Amino acid sequence: MTIPDTKITTSIKKINFKTLAILTILILSIIDFCTPLGTAIGALYLIPMTMVIDQKKSTLYVFSFISTILILFKFFYFQNSNTHISIYSDRLISMIALWVVTFILIAHKTQRNKTEKLILEHNKSITEMLFKINHKIRHSVSQILGLTYTLLKLPIDSKDEIKELLNHIHNTTQELDLQTKELIEFMIKEKQYD
Amino acid sequence: MTIPDTKITTSIKKINFKTLAILTILILSIIDFCTPLGTAIGALYLIPMTMVIDQKKSTLYVFSFISTILILFKFFYFQNSNTHISIYSDRLISMIALWVVTFILIAHKTQRNKTEKLILEHNKSITEMLFKINHKIRHSVSQILGLTYTLLKLPIDSKDEIKELLNHIHNTTQELDLQTKELIEFMIKEKQYD
Repeated sequence: MTIPDTKITTSIKKINFKTLAILTILILSIIDFCTPLGTAIGALYLIPMTMVIDQKKSTLYVFSFISTILILFKFFYFQNSNTHISIYSDRLISMIALWVVTFILIAHKTQRNKTEKLILEHNKSITEMLFKINHKIRHSVSQILGLTYTLLKLPIDSKDEIKELLNHIHNTTQELDLQTKELIEFMIKEKQYD
Repeated sequence: MTIPDTKITTSIKKINFKTLAILTILILSIIDFCTPLGTAIGALYLIPMTMVIDQKKSTLYVFSFISTILILFKFFYFQNSNTHISIYSDRLISMIALWVVTFILIAHKTQRNKTEKLILEHNKSITEMLFKINHKIRHSVSQILGLTYTLLKLPIDSKDEIKELLNHIHNTTQELDLQTKELIEFMIKEKQYD
């Protein structure tokens, strides 16, 4: 009997998207400050956002907030009385895109969290049920074992055949006992994957 | 015994992100064609992209491709000899952002697919194992039942006590039989959730 020995959550080599996102934001901010205000680089700030879609909601908000600050900071640092109206709109569009994307990603995250919660609850109920059924089976088995033990200890006048049969019952029930133990072992291992 | 009766995949009221994404692209293309070429609206094309992150990889590619066409189409439709260099770079940045985001979303999708595949394989092995164990238990139970049946049919000279005990064994084993049937029923239901 082989129990799957791969721990699901750790067995996959995950790309470290969070570190990648931080690096991207850093590189972007450097590029942003080296290019004239007229270059609509704002769209690129959405790249690190999509890198953190599997992170916590708070991480998404933090990345969105940092990107907003960087977008605004460059604008207020470089703007002057000659700044063209289109630059105002460009930066505004970048921020609108950034926050709409953030809220869409949060909505996706909420939906995925709900699904995950349902799956976890489902798995929990499976384990609970298996434990309940197993408990009942083991109760019956212990009853059979007690009965056969009593039977075998009774001073029966001959009937070797009966004794042989009773021995057989006893052996079979012991086998059954081992099998239910195996079931329990399996379920305990199972619990670790929940 | 209550079996969870919510089918996980359908129980969650899902936001129809795909329809929303198509509508967004339509609205965006109208806005894009109504604004001058200098407005860096390209970033907004990333909004529908993030709406389809839970869709198939092919859907992601299709949305990215349509957005690229729309970005390029507006550019070639409105550009002339006076088009400023910054407009070229704006549209190029939009497309870079779009395709980088697409490939990040595809990478996330691949990672999620791997996790889902592992979970499915894991669930499959659980079910297979439970069926195997259950099969063994039921084999033992049928053996006990056969033995007790033979014992009860034997013409024993008196010993009412033995007969009573044997009846008891028989009843308990029948109970055990019902419990393992319950286990099988549960596992069959379980299979429907895989």
